[in-house]
Amino acid sequence: MSANTFGQIFQIHSFGESHGAALGVVIDGCPAGVDFDMELLKRDLARRRPGHQAVVSPRKESDDPEILSGVFEGKTLGTPIAILVRNQDQRSKDYSSSAPARAGHADDVWKEKFGHTDYRGGGRSSGRETVARVMGGAVAKMFLQQAEKSLEIFAWASQIGPFAISAEEKNILLQQDASQEFIDRHVARFPSTKAPELEIFLQRAQQEGESYGGRAALCVRGMPQSLGQPVFHKLKSDLAQALLSIGATAGLLLGEEAQNVAAARGTEFHALTSQTQYGGVRGGISTGEDLLLEVLFKPTSSLLDVAKKGRHDPCIVPRAIPVIEAMTALVLADHVLWRRLDRSV
Amino acid sequence: MSANTFGQIFQIHSFGESHGAALGVVIDGCPAGVDFDMELLKRDLARRRPGHQAVVSPRKESDDPEILSGVFEGKTLGTPIAILVRNQDQRSKDYSSSAPARAGHADDVWKEKFGHTDYRGGGRSSGRETVARVMGGAVAKMFLQQAEKSLEIFAWASQIGPFAISAEEKNILLQQDASQEFIDRHVARFPSTKAPELEIFLQRAQQEGESYGGRAALCVRGMPQSLGQPVFHKLKSDLAQALLSIGATAGLLLGEEAQNVAAARGTEFHALTSQTQYGGVRGGISTGEDLLLEVLFKPTSSLLDVAKKGRHDPCIVPRAIPVIEAMTALVLADHVLWRRLDRSV
Amino acid sequence: MSANTFGQIFQIHSFGESHGAALGVVIDGCPAGVDFDMELLKRDLARRRPGHQAVVSPRKESDDPEILSGVFEGKTLGTPIAILVRNQDQRSKDYSSSAPARAGHADDVWKEKFGHTDYRGGGRSSGRETVARVMGGAVAKMFLQQAEKSLEIFAWASQIGPFAISAEEKNILLQQDASQEFIDRHVARFPSTKAPELEIFLQRAQQEGESYGGRAALCVRGMPQSLGQPVFHKLKSDLAQALLSIGATAGLLLGEEAQNVAAARGTEFHALTSQTQYGGVRGGISTGEDLLLEVLFKPTSSLLDVAKKGRHDPCIVPRAIPVIEAMTALVLADHVLWRRLDRSV
Amino acid sequence: MSANTFGQIFQIHSFGESHGAALGVVIDGCPAGVDFDMELLKRDLARRRPGHQAVVSPRKESDDPEILSGVFEGKTLGTPIAILVRNQDQRSKDYSSSAPARAGHADDVWKEKFGHTDYRGGGRSSGRETVARVMGGAVAKMFLQQAEKSLEIFAWASQIGPFAISAEEKNILLQQDASQEFIDRHVARFPSTKAPELEIFLQRAQQEGESYGGRAALCVRGMPQSLGQPVFHKLKSDLAQALLSIGATAGLLLGEEAQNVAAARGTEFHALTSQTQYGGVRGGISTGEDLLLEVLFKPTSSLLDVAKKGRHDPCIVPRAIPVIEAMTALVLADHVLWRRLDRSV
Repeated sequence: MSANTFGQIFQIHSFGESHGAALGVVIDGCPAGVDFDMELLKRDLARRRPGHQAVVSPRKESDDPEILSGVFEGKTLGTPIAILVRNQDQRSKDYSSSAPARAGHADDVWKEKFGHTDYRGGGRSSGRETVARVMGGAVAKMFLQQAEKSLEIFAWASQIGPFAISAEEKNILLQQDASQEFIDRHVARFPSTKAPELEIFLQRAQQEGESYGGRAALCVRGMPQSLGQPVFHKLKSDLAQALLSIGATAGLLLGEEAQNVAAARGTEFHALTSQTQYGGVRGGISTGEDLLLEVLFKPTSSLLDVAKKGRHDPCIVPRAIPVIEAMTALVLADHVLWRRLDRSV
Repeated sequence: MSANTFGQIFQIHSFGESHGAALGVVIDGCPAGVDFDMELLKRDLARRRPGHQAVVSPRKESDDPEILSGVFEGKTLGTPIAILVRNQDQRSKDYSSSAPARAGHADDVWKEKFGHTDYRGGGRSSGRETVARVMGGAVAKMFLQQAEKSLEIFAWASQIGPFAISAEEKNILLQQDASQEFIDRHVARFPSTKAPELEIFLQRAQQEGESYGGRAALCVRGMPQSLGQPVFHKLKSDLAQALLSIGATAGLLLGEEAQNVAAARGTEFHALTSQTQYGGVRGGISTGEDLLLEVLFKPTSSLLDVAKKGRHDPCIVPRAIPVIEAMTALVLADHVLWRRLDRSV
Repeated sequence: MSANTFGQIFQIHSFGESHGAALGVVIDGCPAGVDFDMELLKRDLARRRPGHQAVVSPRKESDDPEILSGVFEGKTLGTPIAILVRNQDQRSKDYSSSAPARAGHADDVWKEKFGHTDYRGGGRSSGRETVARVMGGAVAKMFLQQAEKSLEIFAWASQIGPFAISAEEKNILLQQDASQEFIDRHVARFPSTKAPELEIFLQRAQQEGESYGGRAALCVRGMPQSLGQPVFHKLKSDLAQALLSIGATAGLLLGEEAQNVAAARGTEFHALTSQTQYGGVRGGISTGEDLLLEVLFKPTSSLLDVAKKGRHDPCIVPRAIPVIEAMTALVLADHVLWRRLDRSV
Repeated sequence: MSANTFGQIFQIHSFGESHGAALGVVIDGCPAGVDFDMELLKRDLARRRPGHQAVVSPRKESDDPEILSGVFEGKTLGTPIAILVRNQDQRSKDYSSSAPARAGHADDVWKEKFGHTDYRGGGRSSGRETVARVMGGAVAKMFLQQAEKSLEIFAWASQIGPFAISAEEKNILLQQDASQEFIDRHVARFPSTKAPELEIFLQRAQQEGESYGGRAALCVRGMPQSLGQPVFHKLKSDLAQALLSIGATAGLLLGEEAQNVAAARGTEFHALTSQTQYGGVRGGISTGEDLLLEVLFKPTSSLLDVAKKGRHDPCIVPRAIPVIEAMTALVLADHVLWRRLDRSV
């Protein structure tokens, strides 16, 4: 029973405050013999970093991971893999204990709960904690690459405030060979012809101290079959826990039709031939079809913090993309291992 | 690590196939000294039963709970509470191993996964498994009544196919003294002036073999403060796992504004005075304000099963209401206990 | 986190008070496709029953197991297997709330801890709770028989008060084909030429209200290799937890030399060729050699309970034998499954 | 389910190979508001260090702990506390992959299990892993000091090869104010008048490449009442798992009489007035009397490793003392928190 541990078999233990000495993760349950891909780890950390695109938060974080254990001669040992990232600015001049609580933020809630809290930049409720998740997710991907060759996870911003991906653009993403690289080339990870227009919109929001909600869409191509454990660890149930543990999330929609599912007729819904309406999950278990879902996000909460004006994220969705991918990788790695226990022989 | 166990401290272990000898639950982690309310247990089981209203599935289930352990002289012992409900028709004439898989159903997915499965009426993927959840939830409510006097959990159908609760009707539910009893008095637990019209609509759907998706809304009044554990057992994260472990769910929306959150502006969203947009949770922790959320459901999947034509549920939402309440009670009981561990003294 | 759950993957959830309605077990994590051996289950329950030999407690318990779930057409489903045994005498005339606490017994300790307790015959601290363990162990054996063909678990009384198995008799047990059946044919499961003499000794003890401590020895033949997970779930560590959760245990000795290990010289100890000094475990992991250990027991504690005089167990060891075997089977089943997760491919 | 995690509520996650970059621990579940005692942490690490006394292993380890998270302004935050100790010699000149397996050591067993292992100095099966345990135990002690003022944990070598503490010396330790400091002043933590004689004996053993088994005794004074959870997390059961997860352990004896318990008569055993025969635990739950137990150890296994001749530990018991204390502190902290969940109000 630990609130900082995620996963049943392939587990991560996350630690670190946003302005403490370091953030880190201990990955436990990763089998021995996985090829450790340092480049993948660094790439995912760089992708997570705020400011990778002009329009998102320019806070400087150069995250250099140090592997402390669990890897030897390029392979995992089956022992815990501890990875550390130092915080560069521990002194936290920007924050003080007398600062007023930020609207929509967790500071006052934590103070009430624990009595003693770290008021520096949100402490552990800060988005910086996701460094641990992204590192854990990177190792999950290394395992999945070896165990499930063709699996590919990618997410994108499907809506940012008034800007939304069109049905046509979505089809191209799902049906053709869209990839993480393709998505990352777009402003705010919004793979649309409207991306340049969005850029101007977001820059203005930043200057004005405005922020917006949004949606992130996720697709997993080459999904393994038979993932998910009835009845409380269905794949959709574990994905929901994983994704709604991310800050600022406000909802989850499974499958391509979830937005309209409440009004759907069964005779039409279940007769669809592409089956994307199930999102790759039936009875809580993966069918082998593409996994499809969307995560809803609230507008960034720190916008009213005067000290951060002009430096805040006008929308959290672009930054959340690598975190959504990481949490999904962790859930899949967990269930790929769990599936090994299904049958007696 | 068990897929049939829910909860970290206040746990339920669910067991039983829909056409096996019995369904049951073992509740573990319920403290000693809770007054056992047999009437509450029976009432919740009766509320779960299909057919409690003319328009929903008329399958006969008279669920008579037997307490096997954990209760002595009217109080819980702190030992596991096992409760059993016998299945009345074990022979399952309606189902045979040669029956074609039902569209949208889990039968084929389970067969692929486990090799050996119970093809009778869905086995454990059947909605009948929710008997265990409702019994567990009833005991969670008994604990909550003692520990958190004023807490009240109630859910209702906020949409069934084309029928939706109006904004006005919703406000009445949230602001005035709506209650489980008030909601249960309405056809299909749809507390609206349109309920009679809906009844006719659903009866026709049943005759025609049609089904509909829908939405269930949940409110918890008198919410305790400081529930939820950062970072992976935030209250919203655990609620998401709990609610998306229910069959036919397709999504979750947290707070009153989730439907529109993607397009929201931060300056407006966070400035709202009622704060219902947060749904009673900030930074993943309960604020003490009302908990508010909605669950999306797909159209019932068994409608194409010829044998069940005219007997199927045209919409699963009314039946899901007591299950949603039960899973919520379980999450809250778990976190009320977990909160006892927050501080050193 | 549950105090009534044992195991990480292959789990049992135990429930029931000694004088409540029933005792039972839910076995979760047993893979699908295991042949269910009803005879084995009944045989193990019969072997556990007090009074199977003249000299041990004549309390009547006819334990008829009812399978409630998880088994279909003779095979396990991969779903929870719930098994129930009814208590025959729930009224408990022998016990009353005003009875003085029994020396060495847990009644007063439980009262202090939980406030509200079941004073009837020890409630859940009674030896009767081991019914659940024996049923769980029987299913673990069914799985092991299928997964690890040649594995054989057997235990015996190696000491009862002043009577001890001689070195010669022990060697015969370990080296020749001793078996459960061979052991069960002896009075008090004490496989020695002195068994008849012991019988007279125990009968006299029963009449006199005397009781004795003792030792149980365990051997697993055909042990699988590579069981045990460093560093906190070493095989010896999990066996220790399993065996010291049994009532009246006072110690554990691993390997054939543990009794004398404190005075041993390394140059001699590690040079032994048979390697039975390691007990089949090195570095906490099974080597494939026979598993060997001993469990120490205190004298039965209920002897001062006047009401039970002449009916008490003069020594708990004979009754504990099937429980020790069951707990061992549970640990092995758990680790046979866990081993499936060791390597990446 | 993690083999590197210990505890249910107050948990440690241990990581690090003996010759990797670092060893560390993440402590999760420690409540907020505990005064962090850096001196206690450093003292316990120093006490664990081999070579603190002339006669034990002179391997140099200067363990300087770095707090990475979870502590702010001198108090715990309720978030994970990560502590790191760097390994000073990562290159490991002393070890090579072609070295023959050491008798009684785990190297070959790990190779067989995981396929890919760290052959440098035992990797994670090395005694060096206990650094993590000692650091976790130190934080557990900080919590216990605040929650259970008078609690005091101390262990000592009660036997080393042919040398054993006399009954008189033992009584003095238990009845008078023996303490950790008193014990540490003795050679090999053997608090006896024979300590000087033992020193000569051990020095000779080291020169000759000999090693010895032994026993460690543990006493907890000021024990809290009502610790332990029936039926599988009894205090003795969890202590057994904790202590037998330590390397080279061969057995556990609970209470002062366990050595002789097998031959004991009930009428005498249970009539003892001091009750030290129960070791402070009845029915698996602490009574508030002193906790008393002994751990048996095998002779050190590395003695046949030629490279280490003259540098090896002639007996592991003295070094194991702080680890036994640490594991005990972890079990007690876990159960002090668990006890908060016993009653409904």
